[in-house]
Amino acid sequence: MDIEQFRKAGYAAIDRICDYYASLQARPVIAQVQPGYLRKLIPDAAPEKGEDFTVVQDDYQKFIVPGLTSWQHPSFFAYFPTACTFEGILGDLYASSVCHPGFNWSCSPASTELEAITMDWGAKLLGLSPAFYNTSGVGGGVIMTTASDSALTVIVAARSRYTRLFPEVKAEQLILYVTTQTHSLGVKAGLVLGLKVRAIDVKAEDNFALRGEVLRKALEEDTEKGLKPFVFVATVGTTSSGAIDRLEEIGPVVQDYPGLWLHVDAAWAGVALSCPEYREIAKLASINEYATSFCTNFHKWGLVNFDMSTLWVRDRKLLTDALDVTPEFLRTKHGDAGTVVDYRNWHLGLGRRFRSLKFWFVLRGFGVKGFQNYIRRCIKLNDLFVSLLKSSPNFAIVTPPSFALTVFRLEPTQSSDINPSASQLNDLNRIFWSRVSARHDIYLTQTDLNGVFCIRLAVGAERTTEAHIRQAFELLSTEAEGALKVWQEARTADE
Amino acid sequence: MDIEQFRKAGYAAIDRICDYYASLQARPVIAQVQPGYLRKLIPDAAPEKGEDFTVVQDDYQKFIVPGLTSWQHPSFFAYFPTACTFEGILGDLYASSVCHPGFNWSCSPASTELEAITMDWGAKLLGLSPAFYNTSGVGGGVIMTTASDSALTVIVAARSRYTRLFPEVKAEQLILYVTTQTHSLGVKAGLVLGLKVRAIDVKAEDNFALRGEVLRKALEEDTEKGLKPFVFVATVGTTSSGAIDRLEEIGPVVQDYPGLWLHVDAAWAGVALSCPEYREIAKLASINEYATSFCTNFHKWGLVNFDMSTLWVRDRKLLTDALDVTPEFLRTKHGDAGTVVDYRNWHLGLGRRFRSLKFWFVLRGFGVKGFQNYIRRCIKLNDLFVSLLKSSPNFAIVTPPSFALTVFRLEPTQSSDINPSASQLNDLNRIFWSRVSARHDIYLTQTDLNGVFCIRLAVGAERTTEAHIRQAFELLSTEAEGALKVWQEARTADE
Repeated sequence: MDIEQFRKAGYAAIDRICDYYASLQARPVIAQVQPGYLRKLIPDAAPEKGEDFTVVQDDYQKFIVPGLTSWQHPSFFAYFPTACTFEGILGDLYASSVCHPGFNWSCSPASTELEAITMDWGAKLLGLSPAFYNTSGVGGGVIMTTASDSALTVIVAARSRYTRLFPEVKAEQLILYVTTQTHSLGVKAGLVLGLKVRAIDVKAEDNFALRGEVLRKALEEDTEKGLKPFVFVATVGTTSSGAIDRLEEIGPVVQDYPGLWLHVDAAWAGVALSCPEYREIAKLASINEYATSFCTNFHKWGLVNFDMSTLWVRDRKLLTDALDVTPEFLRTKHGDAGTVVDYRNWHLGLGRRFRSLKFWFVLRGFGVKGFQNYIRRCIKLNDLFVSLLKSSPNFAIVTPPSFALTVFRLEPTQSSDINPSASQLNDLNRIFWSRVSARHDIYLTQTDLNGVFCIRLAVGAERTTEAHIRQAFELLSTEAEGALKVWQEARTADE
Repeated sequence: MDIEQFRKAGYAAIDRICDYYASLQARPVIAQVQPGYLRKLIPDAAPEKGEDFTVVQDDYQKFIVPGLTSWQHPSFFAYFPTACTFEGILGDLYASSVCHPGFNWSCSPASTELEAITMDWGAKLLGLSPAFYNTSGVGGGVIMTTASDSALTVIVAARSRYTRLFPEVKAEQLILYVTTQTHSLGVKAGLVLGLKVRAIDVKAEDNFALRGEVLRKALEEDTEKGLKPFVFVATVGTTSSGAIDRLEEIGPVVQDYPGLWLHVDAAWAGVALSCPEYREIAKLASINEYATSFCTNFHKWGLVNFDMSTLWVRDRKLLTDALDVTPEFLRTKHGDAGTVVDYRNWHLGLGRRFRSLKFWFVLRGFGVKGFQNYIRRCIKLNDLFVSLLKSSPNFAIVTPPSFALTVFRLEPTQSSDINPSASQLNDLNRIFWSRVSARHDIYLTQTDLNGVFCIRLAVGAERTTEAHIRQAFELLSTEAEGALKVWQEARTADE
């Protein structure tokens, strides 16, 4: 493809993207295809001769688009949102057009420098302590792929620090702490690193947040057994219910254990720190006082296209001490002089994409105010959903709504004389869930909170409005009625 | 930004990318900026109010572009190439416009299915055994970020398999094998996983390739000591010199050690397998017979924009057994039914980008023939460079040229009566290197081969032509003359 062919194909791509967004609402949220659909549509090997790009772009439209679940659809409420903004698309486009692997300063200075600068912009946006700024020269921020990547990296650094502090400790004594509500990234990091993991139980009465004393008890038990807890992954905004671990209690406990690293995973909720009114609930003061590292994913609820996990550490040397490998072919005069940051020593791999560009574009395009407005609007829409649920006799809110996330279920006990068991209620909600998840015009996900099966609704697509929330509630009410009928008939038949 | 604003900004971006490529040759290869240049040009915090995008895109042009080293410049010969094609840019653009985290089949079926299909296209393009095809139902291919990521993932899977086979083995007995010429990804994986690493010495007389008997000796030594070698990372095309480990000898040795995983890292050279005439030298038959896993990076010499590391395994269960974590919120009906691939269980993280799209676009745009032509053209250009070096009395080729890579240095002994020591020759080449690396119109990198300091030239930018090779040689000859003069004067002064 030559430059003029690219110009033509590029314009066409931009037009198609415009069409996609103009028609987004009319599309199904969930792709209506069956497993294996694509193998039937495209050849089983690459063509011998290159094809005209107009054919390729038409095939994208015909074969790929129908197989894409629309995470940007205004009725997408599943998992957590995955951001996609026009500013972000343009950032990705420019970055992709000047492809380079960005592993050190020299191999593309703008890439490293913009990352260092925009990570400071991000830290300021969220109210993080200046200790985390790159300009501090001690702490700093780096862009990672996902929160799993961020967590795995800091766990490696934590293990490295711990074994430097206590060289006599054996690998099998090390234990990584999470809670039963921590994202699976904790357990997966344990699998990857071959380390013991303890998932500390959290209780419904604590709204699934870890308390300081519960952590202390676990630490005492394990230390007694000769185990060495070296890192605790705390969460601000768990995946299941948006729970916020009690960092103000946890911090002082962690400080009693030398070498214990406190990583705060705020993958989803961290961006709410951009609004001063949410900083207390999201534990900003404790993060700033106690966290060894902090992660939030701007690619979730933060308007920056996937992938864009932002990780800040209080001491960058904890990363580079664990991860610096510099053979001759990677040496540069600037790296040797120590005058630059070489981000390859801050992460697990070597090459890295130029992701700061989309971060820069989004933060400039929205501005701090625009960013805050978006966060506030999502939370307001979630409040509306909560108030609609509360107006119904059939729905119950399982845990207190968290920012833009609500966890709810059917609990008709509130309105009638039936008195179902916990297991019968779970049955009801599974019936309800199977009806909701069979639809293609709305997308939610399920979860389990200490044996209670429930449904999550997370607001976050940029185009979601009040109308979509009301429509979601209508639709859920309809499916609830259907589910209740089936369930009551089954119960009557059982009796 | 609304749809029409995006259309305008998108067209402008496409035009600027066209301008960038039209003017590429006139730009410096290496960014001419000093550390810290960007902090002086842009504010230290995000703006309060959103800015007009025309200002943002102009700032990209003014502040970012001058700080980018041009990896696509026709005179870029450093490291290994990083691919960037118009087809790849368009693939990234469409993928970014429908952002989703792709961690399981359900969350965007087209993403998973296109990955499975194009990975089979890739396997066929390279001549890999059908055992590695996704359609085999046993083996399969997955797109990773980088070769480091691919290697780390298979090392985790190898450790997991080994400890399942031999549950009595302790973590500190495990040892990961690489050679002294393996990419730093091996040593880094050892650091990350906290495992012992042995870098087996390879010899200049073997052209820095590992021989089977050398591996056997190392295995015997370590096994004797009670160590447990569980994975060996072999290389087809090392970073320093393009060396190719003797897989035909290594394979049978590995087979004598149950549970020993053979990973073949062909990050750079693997794409040469697309040309039948290079399959023997690149050890295809041995890869197909012995490799447990095989990796090549299409984002290096394979025309697909970074990142695009392709990993094939002979048994996908080896990955999923090591990496599957499925909490309730990640369960799907298709995943539960086992009818689909959930790629999250094939890699270390959870979310993943829609990278197969650019792979599909590139393979369709170029076709098998076009892909092969590009590889052949690069190798031919490298042959030309070799013949030019050979025509000079000052240059020596340090190891046999490998595909499109030449490792050379100044060795004036060939032409004069001076008889410098090894250390004096290294001095000369460091002088030469400091002159070459101070230039902005060409980019090469240095390396060290068992104490011999030398220079690498890797051909691979899509726009490099014969003229650029001749120009590179002219320029190197000029710097060589300058270096020789300085060096000889210093030697004379010493005497």
